[in-house]
Amino acid sequence: MDKIEIIGIIAGFLTTAAFVPQVYKTWREKSTKDVSLSMYTVLFMGVLLWLLYGINIQSISVILTNATTSLLVLIMILLKLRYK
Amino acid sequence: MDKIEIIGIIAGFLTTAAFVPQVYKTWREKSTKDVSLSMYTVLFMGVLLWLLYGINIQSISVILTNATTSLLVLIMILLKLRYK
Repeated sequence: MDKIEIIGIIAGFLTTAAFVPQVYKTWREKSTKDVSLSMYTVLFMGVLLWLLYGINIQSISVILTNATTSLLVLIMILLKLRYK
Repeated sequence: MDKIEIIGIIAGFLTTAAFVPQVYKTWREKSTKDVSLSMYTVLFMGVLLWLLYGINIQSISVILTNATTSLLVLIMILLKLRYK
Protein backbone atom coordinates (compact mmCIF):
# COMPACT_ATOMS: atom_id res chain seq x y z
CA MET A 1 0.00 0.00 0.00
CA ASP A 2 1.42 3.41 -0.85
CA LYS A 3 1.88 6.32 1.56
CA ILE A 4 -1.04 8.31 0.16
CA GLU A 5 -3.51 5.49 0.84
CA ILE A 6 -2.16 5.15 4.39
CA ILE A 7 -2.85 8.88 4.91
CA GLY A 8 -6.40 8.31 3.63
CA ILE A 9 -6.96 5.38 5.98
CA ILE A 10 -5.70 7.34 9.01
CA ALA A 11 -7.85 10.32 7.93
CA GLY A 12 -10.92 8.08 7.65
CA PHE A 13 -10.23 6.50 11.03
CA LEU A 14 -9.90 9.92 12.72
CA THR A 15 -12.99 11.53 11.15
CA THR A 16 -15.02 8.50 12.22
CA ALA A 17 -13.48 8.02 15.69
CA ALA A 18 -13.99 11.74 16.43
CA PHE A 19 -17.69 11.14 17.11
CA VAL A 20 -17.05 8.57 19.86
CA PRO A 21 -16.12 11.12 22.59
CA GLN A 22 -19.18 13.24 21.67
CA VAL A 23 -21.53 10.24 21.90
CA TYR A 24 -19.91 9.19 25.19
CA LYS A 25 -20.14 12.71 26.65
CA THR A 26 -23.79 13.10 25.62
CA TRP A 27 -24.75 9.62 26.84
CA ARG A 28 -23.07 10.32 30.21
CA GLU A 29 -24.27 13.89 30.77
CA LYS A 30 -27.74 13.49 29.21
CA SER A 31 -27.66 17.08 27.99
CA THR A 32 -27.77 18.22 24.37
CA LYS A 33 -28.79 21.88 24.61
CA ASP A 34 -25.67 23.16 22.82
CA VAL A 35 -25.69 20.45 20.15
CA SER A 36 -27.25 21.35 16.79
CA LEU A 37 -29.87 18.88 15.55
CA SER A 38 -29.60 20.46 12.08
CA MET A 39 -25.89 19.65 12.00
CA TYR A 40 -26.39 15.98 12.79
CA THR A 41 -29.38 15.66 10.44
CA VAL A 42 -27.50 17.13 7.46
CA LEU A 43 -24.37 15.17 8.42
CA PHE A 44 -26.39 11.94 8.54
CA MET A 45 -27.73 12.52 5.01
CA GLY A 46 -24.22 13.36 3.77
CA VAL A 47 -22.63 10.30 5.38
CA LEU A 48 -25.34 8.03 3.94
CA LEU A 49 -24.55 9.44 0.48
CA TRP A 50 -20.82 8.79 1.08
CA LEU A 51 -21.79 5.22 1.97
CA LEU A 52 -23.75 4.93 -1.30
CA TYR A 53 -20.75 6.43 -3.11
CA GLY A 54 -18.43 3.90 -1.45
CA ILE A 55 -20.68 1.00 -2.47
CA ASN A 56 -20.73 2.31 -6.04
CA ILE A 57 -16.96 2.69 -6.33
CA GLN A 58 -16.50 -0.55 -4.32
CA SER A 59 -14.16 1.05 -1.79
CA ILE A 60 -14.07 -0.97 1.42
CA SER A 61 -12.49 1.91 3.40
CA VAL A 62 -15.16 4.42 2.27
CA ILE A 63 -17.91 1.88 3.08
CA LEU A 64 -16.55 0.91 6.52
CA THR A 65 -15.78 4.45 7.74
CA ASN A 66 -19.12 5.87 6.57
CA ALA A 67 -21.16 2.92 7.85
CA THR A 68 -19.58 3.44 11.29
CA THR A 69 -19.92 7.25 11.16
CA SER A 70 -23.58 7.02 10.11
CA LEU A 71 -24.28 4.83 13.14
CA LEU A 72 -22.53 7.25 15.53
CA VAL A 73 -24.31 10.25 13.97
CA LEU A 74 -27.66 8.43 14.20
CA ILE A 75 -27.00 7.76 17.91
CA MET A 76 -26.34 11.51 18.38
CA ILE A 77 -29.66 12.34 16.66
CA LEU A 78 -31.50 9.90 18.95
CA LEU A 79 -29.73 11.28 22.04
CA LYS A 80 -30.59 14.83 20.94
CA LEU A 81 -34.27 13.90 20.54
CA ARG A 82 -34.24 12.01 23.87
CA TYR A 83 -32.49 14.68 25.98
CA LYS A 84 -33.74 17.95 24.54
CA MET B 1 -19.80 13.70 -15.15
CA ASP B 2 -21.28 10.34 -14.18
CA LYS B 3 -24.00 9.75 -11.57
CA ILE B 4 -21.60 8.29 -9.00
CA GLU B 5 -19.43 11.43 -9.00
CA ILE B 6 -22.55 13.60 -8.62
CA ILE B 7 -23.47 11.54 -5.51
CA GLY B 8 -19.94 12.14 -4.18
CA ILE B 9 -20.18 15.88 -4.76
CA ILE B 10 -23.56 16.14 -3.01
CA ALA B 11 -22.21 13.97 -0.15
CA GLY B 12 -19.17 16.25 0.19
CA PHE B 13 -21.34 19.36 0.14
CA LEU B 14 -23.64 17.98 2.88
CA THR B 15 -20.90 16.73 5.22
CA THR B 16 -19.23 20.15 4.96
CA ALA B 17 -22.40 22.29 5.12
CA ALA B 18 -23.58 20.33 8.19
CA PHE B 19 -21.18 22.29 10.41
CA VAL B 20 -22.63 25.68 9.46
CA PRO B 21 -25.77 25.41 11.69
CA GLN B 22 -23.61 24.23 14.62
CA VAL B 23 -21.19 27.14 14.23
CA TYR B 24 -24.11 29.57 13.91
CA LYS B 25 -25.90 28.14 16.98
CA THR B 26 -22.74 28.25 19.10
CA TRP B 27 -21.80 31.75 17.93
CA ARG B 28 -25.34 33.00 18.72
CA GLU B 29 -25.88 31.22 22.07
CA LYS B 30 -22.28 31.48 23.32
CA SER B 31 -22.62 28.16 25.12
CA THR B 32 -20.57 25.02 24.44
CA LYS B 33 -21.06 22.93 27.57
CA ASP B 34 -22.54 19.96 25.70
CA VAL B 35 -20.06 20.11 22.82
CA SER B 36 -17.08 17.72 23.00
CA LEU B 37 -13.69 19.40 22.51
CA SER B 38 -12.15 15.95 21.93
CA MET B 39 -14.54 15.38 19.03
CA TYR B 40 -13.60 18.60 17.27
CA THR B 41 -9.88 18.17 17.96
CA VAL B 42 -9.78 14.63 16.50
CA LEU B 43 -12.06 15.72 13.65
CA PHE B 44 -9.74 18.64 12.86
CA MET B 45 -6.72 16.33 12.60
CA GLY B 46 -8.71 13.91 10.43
CA VAL B 47 -9.98 16.63 8.10
CA LEU B 48 -6.44 18.05 7.72
CA LEU B 49 -5.25 14.58 6.70
CA TRP B 50 -8.12 14.35 4.17
CA LEU B 51 -6.94 17.71 2.82
CA LEU B 52 -3.39 16.34 2.51
CA TYR B 53 -4.82 13.24 0.84
CA GLY B 54 -6.81 15.41 -1.60
CA ILE B 55 -3.70 17.42 -2.48
CA ASN B 56 -1.79 14.18 -3.09
CA ILE B 57 -4.42 12.63 -5.33
CA GLN B 58 -5.08 16.06 -6.91
CA SER B 59 -8.82 15.91 -6.28
CA ILE B 60 -10.34 19.40 -6.33
CA SER B 61 -13.55 18.24 -4.62
CA VAL B 62 -11.67 16.52 -1.76
CA ILE B 63 -9.45 19.62 -1.35
CA LEU B 64 -12.32 22.14 -1.41
CA THR B 65 -14.68 20.26 0.92
CA ASN B 66 -11.96 19.47 3.47
CA ALA B 67 -10.44 22.96 3.37
CA THR B 68 -13.90 24.39 4.14
CA THR B 69 -14.69 21.76 6.80
CA SER B 70 -11.33 22.29 8.52
CA LEU B 71 -12.10 26.01 8.77
CA LEU B 72 -15.58 25.37 10.25
CA VAL B 73 -14.20 22.78 12.70
CA LEU B 74 -11.40 25.17 13.72
CA ILE B 75 -14.01 27.88 14.41
CA MET B 76 -15.87 25.38 16.65
CA ILE B 77 -12.65 24.63 18.56
CA LEU B 78 -12.04 28.36 19.07
CA LEU B 79 -15.68 28.91 20.16
CA LYS B 80 -15.39 25.98 22.58
CA LEU B 81 -12.22 27.43 24.10
CA ARG B 82 -13.78 30.91 24.22
CA TYR B 83 -17.15 29.93 25.77
CA LYS B 84 -16.32 27.06 28.09
